Amino acid sequence: MSGEQELGITESKEHATGEWYAELVQKAGLADYAPMGGFIVTRPRGYAIWERLKNHLDGWFKQTGVQNAYFPMFIPESYLEKEKDIVEGFDPEVAWVTKGGYDELEEQLAVRPTSESIITPFLAQWTRSHRDLPIRVNQWCSVVRWEATETKPFFRTKEFLWQEGHTAHHDEEDAVEEMETRLGQYKRLYEDVLAMPVLSGRKPDHDKFPGAHTTTTVEALMPDGKSVQGGTSHYLGTSFAEAYDVTYVDEDEEVKTAHTTSWGLSWRALGALFMTHSDDQGLVLPPTLAETQVVIVPIWDEDSKDDVLAYAEDVEADLEDAGVRVELDDRDHRNPGFKYNEHELNGVPLRIEIGSYEVADDELTLVHRPDGEEITVERDNVAETVEDHLDTIFAKLYASAEETLEGEIREAESREEILGTIGQHGGYVKCGWCGDEACEEPIKDAIAAEIVMVPKDRDEEPIHDECAICGDEAEETAYFAKTY
Amino acid sequence: MSGEQELGITESKEHATGEWYAELVQKAGLADYAPMGGFIVTRPRGYAIWERLKNHLDGWFKQTGVQNAYFPMFIPESYLEKEKDIVEGFDPEVAWVTKGGYDELEEQLAVRPTSESIITPFLAQWTRSHRDLPIRVNQWCSVVRWEATETKPFFRTKEFLWQEGHTAHHDEEDAVEEMETRLGQYKRLYEDVLAMPVLSGRKPDHDKFPGAHTTTTVEALMPDGKSVQGGTSHYLGTSFAEAYDVTYVDEDEEVKTAHTTSWGLSWRALGALFMTHSDDQGLVLPPTLAETQVVIVPIWDEDSKDDVLAYAEDVEADLEDAGVRVELDDRDHRNPGFKYNEHELNGVPLRIEIGSYEVADDELTLVHRPDGEEITVERDNVAETVEDHLDTIFAKLYASAEETLEGEIREAESREEILGTIGQHGGYVKCGWCGDEACEEPIKDAIAAEIVMVPKDRDEEPIHDECAICGDEAEETAYFAKTY
Ligand SMILES: [Zn+2]
Ligand SMILES: [Zn+2]
Repeated sequence: MSGEQELGITESKEHATGEWYAELVQKAGLADYAPMGGFIVTRPRGYAIWERLKNHLDGWFKQTGVQNAYFPMFIPESYLEKEKDIVEGFDPEVAWVTKGGYDELEEQLAVRPTSESIITPFLAQWTRSHRDLPIRVNQWCSVVRWEATETKPFFRTKEFLWQEGHTAHHDEEDAVEEMETRLGQYKRLYEDVLAMPVLSGRKPDHDKFPGAHTTTTVEALMPDGKSVQGGTSHYLGTSFAEAYDVTYVDEDEEVKTAHTTSWGLSWRALGALFMTHSDDQGLVLPPTLAETQVVIVPIWDEDSKDDVLAYAEDVEADLEDAGVRVELDDRDHRNPGFKYNEHELNGVPLRIEIGSYEVADDELTLVHRPDGEEITVERDNVAETVEDHLDTIFAKLYASAEETLEGEIREAESREEILGTIGQHGGYVKCGWCGDEACEEPIKDAIAAEIVMVPKDRDEEPIHDECAICGDEAEETAYFAKTY
Repeated sequence: MSGEQELGITESKEHATGEWYAELVQKAGLADYAPMGGFIVTRPRGYAIWERLKNHLDGWFKQTGVQNAYFPMFIPESYLEKEKDIVEGFDPEVAWVTKGGYDELEEQLAVRPTSESIITPFLAQWTRSHRDLPIRVNQWCSVVRWEATETKPFFRTKEFLWQEGHTAHHDEEDAVEEMETRLGQYKRLYEDVLAMPVLSGRKPDHDKFPGAHTTTTVEALMPDGKSVQGGTSHYLGTSFAEAYDVTYVDEDEEVKTAHTTSWGLSWRALGALFMTHSDDQGLVLPPTLAETQVVIVPIWDEDSKDDVLAYAEDVEADLEDAGVRVELDDRDHRNPGFKYNEHELNGVPLRIEIGSYEVADDELTLVHRPDGEEITVERDNVAETVEDHLDTIFAKLYASAEETLEGEIREAESREEILGTIGQHGGYVKCGWCGDEACEEPIKDAIAAEIVMVPKDRDEEPIHDECAICGDEAEETAYFAKTY
């Protein structure tokens, strides 16, 4: 690991975002490319962030009635076929297992692209009486979608890690509430853990999850002006329940069909996180997700070494006692400058520098990773002081992302204005929309921007009376943006 | 879930262990059979136990320098082939992905049967200087081995959940110490968390992990007298490091080959746990792993209901405050007897019964799940009392498993004695062994027992001077047993 870390990032985030991102991921030790195109190796530093993210979300799921389970990674072709009663499905994107050992399988098995078709039959089996509902199961696993695009770690990979929740409810009201609960938790994850404001809305009908009644989404704006779909929550109506017979006997002994939902968030959230906060020095992480929140770098010469180290160890002990994730970097073979660069590259949110001056004055020098702000503080009450500064660092990250987002939502009243505005600035463009997919096409064809969402509330008045593209009456407000 | 739970277990653990186990797994809601033979669905109650087990082990791994990571679930055929320089490998057991979407893949991909062949090349890439070692990565994932045997949930399935650790070290001494550390953690898991004593030893050379220098194992005895391999830890020598070029520059600028290890524990540990402690009433779990450690069952009539419930809620609050995982079963539509049966089936370690008598006398009635022992205790200090009883329940489970194990290790001095002793009693039979695989065969052929381990210490004197089978000089002590 030494070899690569001696070199910092050479690409510019502003001028070559894609190259900069690829370099960041490798040099900060987040991921490597696997030998097969489309696959990555998630390295310990990247995986630890995924684990922390997962612990937050998983805790909220459990507090709100979700139970984890594990379903097979393979789905028989005939089970996937059954979905075709509902929709076209995932066929063109499925990886197929056709051989076990030296033998051809009688029925080929899909590596799960998502698990509705294997989980819903079990929801059916477990649902007898109205007392069995709601059922809420979730699994943390990987899924495979065989898309032939360029690999972009955490954004575009054939295999990706995610969680998928699947629930069954008595009626539409309960199921819609479930969809909202999960979307709310995704929003909370972005805002309170990833330090990223997001927009939430509904996918236009032509871009819903196959078979869904409603698909809701949280959308995050990336620094290059593109929108990332950060997590989706679907109300599936009774379509899957009907196809797989999820029925129950209600209190009046009547047989009813359940209403189901599904919702998923993938490691794309990591990609969005890295892309949003990091800079030309390397990774920037909010303290909520950083494995090491604080690094102490002692600065000594031969005479001061013992005093400086003792003082630093004492500070480390105080922080550890307070539950701060702190590391004392007392490596002998590296100088402070090297250490600064390395910890900046790796995204440690707060650095504490301790030299002879700090020891003499009973002080500490703090440096905030996001903006390099340097502050001298008293040694006393170090834990409280550091916790305040970690909060400040989180707030700085959030504020900066919020400022970007707020300036990047514009309006347009014609096709030319949509094209011109997105072409020039990126970001989101809101406009009146008749609801016809055909009106998205000229924008898609010209600049690869699409309708990433419409307002969740179907009754909300469109911002303009006319569709910006065809001039017919507007049904809703469309948010156009380029996407990842 | 109501439908199935009204029926208790009908098979006898003693007289029909296999049928009893299959019924236990389904009726206690641990797992269901998937539509494809060899696969299971791990239901929430089963998965929650796996999660708790995982948290224990994962915590110990992290305390001892292990970092989690995630490697692709597919391995290119050419990468697996490279292993053939070392050993025959997993070919006959591999599930192959041959198609992505509608297209044949140029190179077929193995669904990982284990990940040495994809992880070791990355250990090589990350290892430059002696300062980069040791490297220790672990992943929690599922693997697939296409074995055509009858499905037995958690014991024999084509896909199973496990963790696999992979490490690289400077030299043999460090790598052997690593192997011992992980084996020790597996032993600790069984003893301190699963309440199961285990034997630890080494696999005979003919039964080592392909390519390993040494394979160590923890073996657990099941109630039907068969041994389960509960976890294995391998010192791989330099064979994998040589095949995949894991080399480093040492302090004297010399290039050296690293020594590697790998170690894994699967959900088979769950199978062994369920099999060992459970009984004809259903699941029995140690309090360490039970999702609900204590269930409070209030017993009321119309007059006493309010008082009993208030008293019970108060007890629940005290226990919750102390961090006990407690559930108050105040369902109206079920009587106490039904509730007792249901919680016994589901393995809740401790039941608290509260009726008018308990309320009047400021007392509680406790019932231990494993043996039905009933104790009346003071209401005061309920948390402390309950914690003591949970400890007692753990100790009862351990003691009972220990007693079984201790009585089931016997000695034999001839082939006939081995066959007779295992045939009559099951369990382990120790004998002198010349070290030749050929001497295992007549035992395997006759009663399907094999050498499950030999002592770890290669210098340990064999218990008898002569091989019990061929009469040649004994090299070590062999432990014969039937296996799962
Ligand atoms: Zn239009
Ligand atoms: Zn012999």
